[in-house]
Amino acid sequence: MVSLRIPPSAAGRARNLLRTVQYTHPPSCPCHANPNHHHHHRSPTLADHVRRHMGAPDPSRQKEYAFEMAASSIRFGPGATKEVGMDFANMKAKRVCIVTDQNVSKLDAMKQAVEGLTREGIEFTVFDKVRVEPKDSSVKEAIAFAKPYNPDAFLAVGGGSVIDTAKLMNLYTVYPDADFLDFVNAPLGKGLPVDRALKPLVAVPTTAGTGSETTGTAIFDLVSKKAKTGIAHRNLKPTLGICDPINTRTMPSAVHAASGLDVLCHSLESWTAIPYNERTPRPTNPINRPAYQGANPISDIFSLQALRSTVKYLPRAVRDPDDFEAQSQMLLAATLAGVGFGNAGVHLCHGMSYPISSQNPGYQHAGYEVDYPIIPHGVSVAVTAPAVFRFTAASNPDRHLAAAEAFGVDISTVKRESAGEVLGEALANFLMELGGQPRGLKDLGFQAGDIESLVEGTIPQKRVLALAPTLSDELEAERAELRGLLEQSLEY
Amino acid sequence: MVSLRIPPSAAGRARNLLRTVQYTHPPSCPCHANPNHHHHHRSPTLADHVRRHMGAPDPSRQKEYAFEMAASSIRFGPGATKEVGMDFANMKAKRVCIVTDQNVSKLDAMKQAVEGLTREGIEFTVFDKVRVEPKDSSVKEAIAFAKPYNPDAFLAVGGGSVIDTAKLMNLYTVYPDADFLDFVNAPLGKGLPVDRALKPLVAVPTTAGTGSETTGTAIFDLVSKKAKTGIAHRNLKPTLGICDPINTRTMPSAVHAASGLDVLCHSLESWTAIPYNERTPRPTNPINRPAYQGANPISDIFSLQALRSTVKYLPRAVRDPDDFEAQSQMLLAATLAGVGFGNAGVHLCHGMSYPISSQNPGYQHAGYEVDYPIIPHGVSVAVTAPAVFRFTAASNPDRHLAAAEAFGVDISTVKRESAGEVLGEALANFLMELGGQPRGLKDLGFQAGDIESLVEGTIPQKRVLALAPTLSDELEAERAELRGLLEQSLEY
Repeated sequence: MVSLRIPPSAAGRARNLLRTVQYTHPPSCPCHANPNHHHHHRSPTLADHVRRHMGAPDPSRQKEYAFEMAASSIRFGPGATKEVGMDFANMKAKRVCIVTDQNVSKLDAMKQAVEGLTREGIEFTVFDKVRVEPKDSSVKEAIAFAKPYNPDAFLAVGGGSVIDTAKLMNLYTVYPDADFLDFVNAPLGKGLPVDRALKPLVAVPTTAGTGSETTGTAIFDLVSKKAKTGIAHRNLKPTLGICDPINTRTMPSAVHAASGLDVLCHSLESWTAIPYNERTPRPTNPINRPAYQGANPISDIFSLQALRSTVKYLPRAVRDPDDFEAQSQMLLAATLAGVGFGNAGVHLCHGMSYPISSQNPGYQHAGYEVDYPIIPHGVSVAVTAPAVFRFTAASNPDRHLAAAEAFGVDISTVKRESAGEVLGEALANFLMELGGQPRGLKDLGFQAGDIESLVEGTIPQKRVLALAPTLSDELEAERAELRGLLEQSLEY
Repeated sequence: MVSLRIPPSAAGRARNLLRTVQYTHPPSCPCHANPNHHHHHRSPTLADHVRRHMGAPDPSRQKEYAFEMAASSIRFGPGATKEVGMDFANMKAKRVCIVTDQNVSKLDAMKQAVEGLTREGIEFTVFDKVRVEPKDSSVKEAIAFAKPYNPDAFLAVGGGSVIDTAKLMNLYTVYPDADFLDFVNAPLGKGLPVDRALKPLVAVPTTAGTGSETTGTAIFDLVSKKAKTGIAHRNLKPTLGICDPINTRTMPSAVHAASGLDVLCHSLESWTAIPYNERTPRPTNPINRPAYQGANPISDIFSLQALRSTVKYLPRAVRDPDDFEAQSQMLLAATLAGVGFGNAGVHLCHGMSYPISSQNPGYQHAGYEVDYPIIPHGVSVAVTAPAVFRFTAASNPDRHLAAAEAFGVDISTVKRESAGEVLGEALANFLMELGGQPRGLKDLGFQAGDIESLVEGTIPQKRVLALAPTLSDELEAERAELRGLLEQSLEY
């Protein structure tokens, strides 16, 4: 169990108690669900366990009983990018496909990567046409580039869009005959598991936000279905993430802020996602256990640590472009949050962010130097956060209080019923003090009349909505709840 | 930075401050070592960084600047063992070598493994002759078994000895022509890096102690050199650890206790090891970055969490064979500690434990059903712990105070100078209350006259001694310090 340092207040004691019981089902054996089991005359035998665990009738109706943690290896250090050529030499790579975008291709990180491979005499090619916020068409173009080159390893240098695109180039190079929709998350695609070993992929993030260097998730716009979706399987994860804080120094302040808000929501959503042992169905084969499996005792450690770091360092990183310590800590927090949500999942903020970004009425976020309207991913995620965590608090008030405490709230006298209110307010204040953020959907140009369309754009995000605590199972009730959350997010 | 929940006391504030500066060198950029850098008229440019980081003259005299975290995937859940056949089918394995020992081969974990592979129609063979506390001769025998079978995957079912032996069978099957000493830790062996990808290895631990299911370390007795040593490289780590708490129910109470003390010391030693950025030399190739690299911000999270869980759950697991929750939590703690020390290292308790176990004057630990004298590994590790942490506290009083706090000590009024005394006493009390533990080396049969021989047996443990804080670099001073620690460990 994640036993946190809690001050010995009444709230703290209550919270500790709750943490102890949150995962009671699996870490405690289900055979012992009776709290009086110590008084049994006969202890459950191994045969009882086996009967209970193996003889179960219909796994699709059973809850999950196990969790699986997988993460890329992570190398962290200023200057570590220069080691990447040696990494490919060590893995005996002979043809490397470097993946980047037009902006990053001009940055020092890319120069280091190219020099590293050149120094080791390793042949490589560069695909520098990754689209920021990839679409299926841009992903297919990238795959079409990779297939004939047939690399034996990939190197992604860039933000989440670059790393995600590289994962998909790797996947479809290893499955050259697969249909594009085969692996896309159900229900939009077939959601097939990735059952082949992919080629080595080294990811060098140049933003501190996505955490994609540690996860098995790749997100893109499936234009034909008008939905943002993706492919998620732990076999998609990079071999190694090289987190070099020198590479994030080039981010403008507005990008620091937006990427950092993504980290904030990764950590808060994974920390508050339903527990893994409440997820159904129980997979009949471990390869079908989703990476987004719900909160578990290991993801919790990462998520809460990332939340605390983000609250502490993001305002500094945004305010002062020379605060290298804060920037380094945010890169580390992004990676920790990546391990957390990469193994637990995200829920409502991310679910609603996809239609918010794609139905943008024309908002152009200040500080983003692009010539088209853009609601950066982190901004679209954070804008609903105050409403979301007010809503989800009832599912687990103590976790929401612990999150409020991470924002510096003195929770010693806060009642559990007020957990959502207190966390929502802490979040709204944090966003306001960070600066440059919309104070609700209206600031992004949305009106009350846009809500229905945003609701309909959220409904297909089954994979993340399934992890939302307190959200209704019934479609009309779910619609009403999403409508409520979006209405409350109009302005604050 | 690992920012812990600290009560707002003076000690707490001091500790937070220290945590913030502990890793200042790399997470803060070295270019900014001048604390007044914000007042510089010119911020350091990227060129300054590159010069500083790339133009360095002699890496062997430079301190480390990066850390690398690698861990096996971990699946945790009661009953998860039954999934293992599907895992091998999913990885398309056709010939599996199962590795176990004579005791475990009769247990249910092994039955599940065999049934799982049989159900999937996967060919396998069983090597059940692993020696508990392996010697080079027993390891070579295991390798000789594996080579002609030429498996395409390995499955280890057992404790640390089994999992370690399976790692070595895997290594030398992939390097069939290597000399046994090629990969053994220097200075006893050549310490060559593992530069080939090994075959998949799934580890199913049946004890809650070693953490070997997550690490790249394998320990054995090198009889010809009269030393306990091993092979350590992150490429040696299992592909997947299946942590099924049903499998540790079979441990006798004494084994719970001894294995749990190993977890306790893994977490305490890795938490207090020198910071990674104080380690020399800086590797010139990332493949030479040791797995035992010193404390770092990610290993810290695991080590401290494992310490807290062990303090909470080990006494319960030892006391009550039906306390399945405590047993489950100890298995999780063992794995978390494995990730922590597997990426940070251990130091003095482990360094001295090897001669303590191998120079056993004839002690037979109660509850171990073997017909020869035995000081279980966990017992030999913990016996020096009170003296060790009294000694190391000066290197980082705040970390030692945080450890004392994990034992339930109210540290709000403790002076930093007393950190070692307070932690040493907390440890001694914990060991006494756990029961069945020696109250010093004399209880194991050692006398003052044995100390010199124990000192000489510890000196070759360079790999772990290099991570010991406050230990002298100079050989005679180091001998005197080890002598002092062993003398203080004679009785308490």
